[in-house]
Amino acid sequence: MDAGLFTANNVWMMVCTALVFFMHMGFAFLEIGLTRQKNTINILFKNIFIITVGLLMYYIGGFNLMYPGFEEGSSGILDFAGFGIGAPENGMTPDYADGGYTWWTDFLFQGMFAATAATIVSGAVAERIKIGPFMIFTILYVGLVYPIVGSWQWGGGFLSTLGGEDGGFYDFAGSTLVHSVGGWGALIAIYLLGARIGKFGEDGKPKAIPGHSIPMATAGVLILWLGWFGFNGGSVLSADPATTSLVLVTTCLAAAAGGVGSFILSTLLYKNYDLTMFLNGILGGLVGITAGADLMSPTESVVIGLIAGAIIVLGVALIDRLKLDDPVGAVTVHLICGIWGTLAVGIFGSMAGMDQFLYQLAGVGAAATFCSLTAFLIIFALKKTVGIRVSKEEELEGLDLHEHGMDAYADFRMNQH
Amino acid sequence: MDAGLFTANNVWMMVCTALVFFMHMGFAFLEIGLTRQKNTINILFKNIFIITVGLLMYYIGGFNLMYPGFEEGSSGILDFAGFGIGAPENGMTPDYADGGYTWWTDFLFQGMFAATAATIVSGAVAERIKIGPFMIFTILYVGLVYPIVGSWQWGGGFLSTLGGEDGGFYDFAGSTLVHSVGGWGALIAIYLLGARIGKFGEDGKPKAIPGHSIPMATAGVLILWLGWFGFNGGSVLSADPATTSLVLVTTCLAAAAGGVGSFILSTLLYKNYDLTMFLNGILGGLVGITAGADLMSPTESVVIGLIAGAIIVLGVALIDRLKLDDPVGAVTVHLICGIWGTLAVGIFGSMAGMDQFLYQLAGVGAAATFCSLTAFLIIFALKKTVGIRVSKEEELEGLDLHEHGMDAYADFRMNQH
Amino acid sequence: MDAGLFTANNVWMMVCTALVFFMHMGFAFLEIGLTRQKNTINILFKNIFIITVGLLMYYIGGFNLMYPGFEEGSSGILDFAGFGIGAPENGMTPDYADGGYTWWTDFLFQGMFAATAATIVSGAVAERIKIGPFMIFTILYVGLVYPIVGSWQWGGGFLSTLGGEDGGFYDFAGSTLVHSVGGWGALIAIYLLGARIGKFGEDGKPKAIPGHSIPMATAGVLILWLGWFGFNGGSVLSADPATTSLVLVTTCLAAAAGGVGSFILSTLLYKNYDLTMFLNGILGGLVGITAGADLMSPTESVVIGLIAGAIIVLGVALIDRLKLDDPVGAVTVHLICGIWGTLAVGIFGSMAGMDQFLYQLAGVGAAATFCSLTAFLIIFALKKTVGIRVSKEEELEGLDLHEHGMDAYADFRMNQH
Repeated sequence: MDAGLFTANNVWMMVCTALVFFMHMGFAFLEIGLTRQKNTINILFKNIFIITVGLLMYYIGGFNLMYPGFEEGSSGILDFAGFGIGAPENGMTPDYADGGYTWWTDFLFQGMFAATAATIVSGAVAERIKIGPFMIFTILYVGLVYPIVGSWQWGGGFLSTLGGEDGGFYDFAGSTLVHSVGGWGALIAIYLLGARIGKFGEDGKPKAIPGHSIPMATAGVLILWLGWFGFNGGSVLSADPATTSLVLVTTCLAAAAGGVGSFILSTLLYKNYDLTMFLNGILGGLVGITAGADLMSPTESVVIGLIAGAIIVLGVALIDRLKLDDPVGAVTVHLICGIWGTLAVGIFGSMAGMDQFLYQLAGVGAAATFCSLTAFLIIFALKKTVGIRVSKEEELEGLDLHEHGMDAYADFRMNQH
Repeated sequence: MDAGLFTANNVWMMVCTALVFFMHMGFAFLEIGLTRQKNTINILFKNIFIITVGLLMYYIGGFNLMYPGFEEGSSGILDFAGFGIGAPENGMTPDYADGGYTWWTDFLFQGMFAATAATIVSGAVAERIKIGPFMIFTILYVGLVYPIVGSWQWGGGFLSTLGGEDGGFYDFAGSTLVHSVGGWGALIAIYLLGARIGKFGEDGKPKAIPGHSIPMATAGVLILWLGWFGFNGGSVLSADPATTSLVLVTTCLAAAAGGVGSFILSTLLYKNYDLTMFLNGILGGLVGITAGADLMSPTESVVIGLIAGAIIVLGVALIDRLKLDDPVGAVTVHLICGIWGTLAVGIFGSMAGMDQFLYQLAGVGAAATFCSLTAFLIIFALKKTVGIRVSKEEELEGLDLHEHGMDAYADFRMNQH
Repeated sequence: MDAGLFTANNVWMMVCTALVFFMHMGFAFLEIGLTRQKNTINILFKNIFIITVGLLMYYIGGFNLMYPGFEEGSSGILDFAGFGIGAPENGMTPDYADGGYTWWTDFLFQGMFAATAATIVSGAVAERIKIGPFMIFTILYVGLVYPIVGSWQWGGGFLSTLGGEDGGFYDFAGSTLVHSVGGWGALIAIYLLGARIGKFGEDGKPKAIPGHSIPMATAGVLILWLGWFGFNGGSVLSADPATTSLVLVTTCLAAAAGGVGSFILSTLLYKNYDLTMFLNGILGGLVGITAGADLMSPTESVVIGLIAGAIIVLGVALIDRLKLDDPVGAVTVHLICGIWGTLAVGIFGSMAGMDQFLYQLAGVGAAATFCSLTAFLIIFALKKTVGIRVSKEEELEGLDLHEHGMDAYADFRMNQH
């Protein structure tokens, strides 16, 4: 491969890495925007903790746990290539990864992905979780659970070879391996944590707890969409013109269709123009296209997005009905649409077929089993020992005051709900 | 062309596409920052609607309306290549577009541009337009008006061949084809819509209605400037090093000079350091350089920017005197500076000359005629049927409450002006 | 060099230029976030002034002052290649700068760096400096001081050849040449300016003056981190895959380690989870790695970051003890961590050694002498003539009202501290 192509590939992957990094700002804005002023510092703190500690965990061991280089004949379930990230001899040449990028870029791109799993949980548990146990959970989930599941597919493990010569499970950029992994953690966590005070009235009916800054939530979604250029575009693992540009088109069309689908259905059902539904629809479309962004035609990506948008409206209602409290809709966006996107690979696009659909189901099932089990074990253990929920007083007065002794908007403090 | 160059070109164009996408966040921030808290959700909703629906409209038919492939001997006014965006056979190879990018990148880059036209209108009509009619206007303006005007020049239509062998109208990145198109829509809309309650006192004198978040407005302008790296840089339609890097220099110098020109003149006239004038001056410089960013020397770009900055100060005063109410200064920034930038191609830079100046005038005139006519027809028809203005009560209480049943800053609600 | 490689190099450098530009939004957000509502417009105005005027100054003379092309046998202290930026004949070909980028890209990338020096000062002097004198200071500091110091090293001046054949001072991306230059200006300025009213009680003890928007401060840090992808990544001056990707890894790991180091030490010392300490730790790690980002292994970058994080906690306490008032911690972040990063090149990484350590000390000393002297002369002269500090009344009521006649958050005004 000539130096120009290798360099162009690596440039694209570095750009994508930066964009995925920027998604953490998107998540942070989305989460604080949809929650209350009094818990803002706490949520930002968690997000900053996740990106810094997540990256360090991935450096210490995560990368080598996710890409252990399974040996021939291995079960493909668990292996570990050792601590740290010393580069292989060919790591900076086109001999590495077919010239798609260098070893360092590989590490950093994957490291930026890794932290995302815990970020998804962060939004769901907002406004009531103790910060200490959350940090422990993050370290374990980002450091161990995420890379192990990832190794099953992207690391060449058992999911990637389910069908033998015919291939196996397929998850282009992580509808399951990133979003569902985070989503299962979120679901288990909010189940064990319980709803926020005031979320369900005495009649058991859900009550809206409005977020304190919809502009920030909107900015968060737009930043996440921007970040998805890198999240999906970089998952090509090179700058191959045909594939990367198709992926950006399917990604953006699915996002647009997700928003519009969600907007139309929610307007039909609830007779108002609900901006947060529109926004979550966009995210649903993005998560939905992620598993097969390189396999779909533009029209198929629009269909996948529209369905994802509808799922958002119905999923949010379902979560409410289950008496689960998910302040930012993380379970619906990342788990339900993640499953939808994963299964869609078996229904639409160039790999569609019954065999593929079953492989996709198997992948969903494997992630479901392992993630919900490990998340339950970690969070249940924390609940029974140090406790995971702040005191009633702290919840009412706000976590910012109690855990951080700070005020997010010192000049603006006033009576709050 | 070798794979390295093709790939590098396409990488740059994808990066530019992402940057132009990000401009929508800049517009959203600018618009909400310069308007009142009570209408924030409504403005964000419009912006999210525009980017999603605009992209879908461009996919359904806009792209093929803008690039219909006019036949030899055609009048070059209107043609249509059909619905959808199936790729041509050579669409992913260097045979397409001289290897500057792939077909998919082409579609997405142009699609991101398309939505901008309606976004410009969105700011001007803020705080008093009904959401339903605005959505209809957006669909028609983005889906039909913008691509038709674009086809006249970028699609190879009649404006591009005004001078026969000698060339014709020139508009590098859209001072006319994007900004004026939006600007004419904005002008017609605010004329038909009338001023906000309280904008003009009983004495007929304009009164400032301060925006609710100048930090967001500032962020919006900085994001728009960033986005212009892609808007102008990508309009090279390849990563050609000489041209792209010149374009970024002229773009940034014009932006800086626009801001400084506006700052100096407004300080001389009004004796205070007016941040919003400074900010709009930057935008004026950016719009002004857009038509000839590839033709100017650094010094010429500074001159164009300084003049654009002065135009901003005078234009805002003019709009006020005309009793028009443009909450964000969209007409001055996008229409007046768009015209200035278009004409500047005939005055400065490597194409300057009387013939070129006349071609530029013709282009300005063609866009003026068609856009103001179509905008008038659409908006007038809406006004006479469903109505375009919210009730007085709704305007006073805020569109967020009435159209969306939501509050942008739930924890911060207080008495508002 | 083939066109593909040249183009890929230039694409990367243009992307990095855009990212460094975006850092100005990061600085603006950080500075307003950590200060009070009543001075928000004033700070934004300064930031917008710096980026626009800084770029124009660099165009007028700064670039040619920083890269004057010192002649053989010159003292390497001061030279000037003339006003304006006409391009050399080979400026757009791979013959220029070994094909790493074009002349235009060179100018713009360096111009974006230049404005940073004054931005660092802006944060430190916030909430009490007169806007007029600050603008004069900016023009002189960005236009003259910064490029002269830069010429000593990056322009091929005396610091770059301290050791003759053996090399000399080393500062990869500007721990000293950018961050310390700004940091010395900040230190001198806050010394001459005095503390804000209320910062030190009658007992002389420092009192926290909380910032008015921690979400904006957090966003500022994340944007700065993103910008550092370009700041350090672009300082490779090409897209060389091995070096650029290593630089991004060391940069991100140092940022993460800086945050975690600061978080751990501040939690041990003060028993609360202090988000601003965490954030400033990230910035400290970034500044700390900047001088040697291309020389360090991942592990070394983590160590440098952890130490920088600890320095942040101790430095902030030191500044307080010295009765200096630095609202955003600029001196600690940019000056102290800048010195630390510069010296670290002599301690860690591929150039470590006693000789190198002494060269690094010499560079630190040279910048310290020249910058503190010139900053003192400029600011002292301003103090003795026009005065540099606003009136007590203006400081209490806010600079926004007095200097700008505007309100940053018109709909949110309330009683302030």
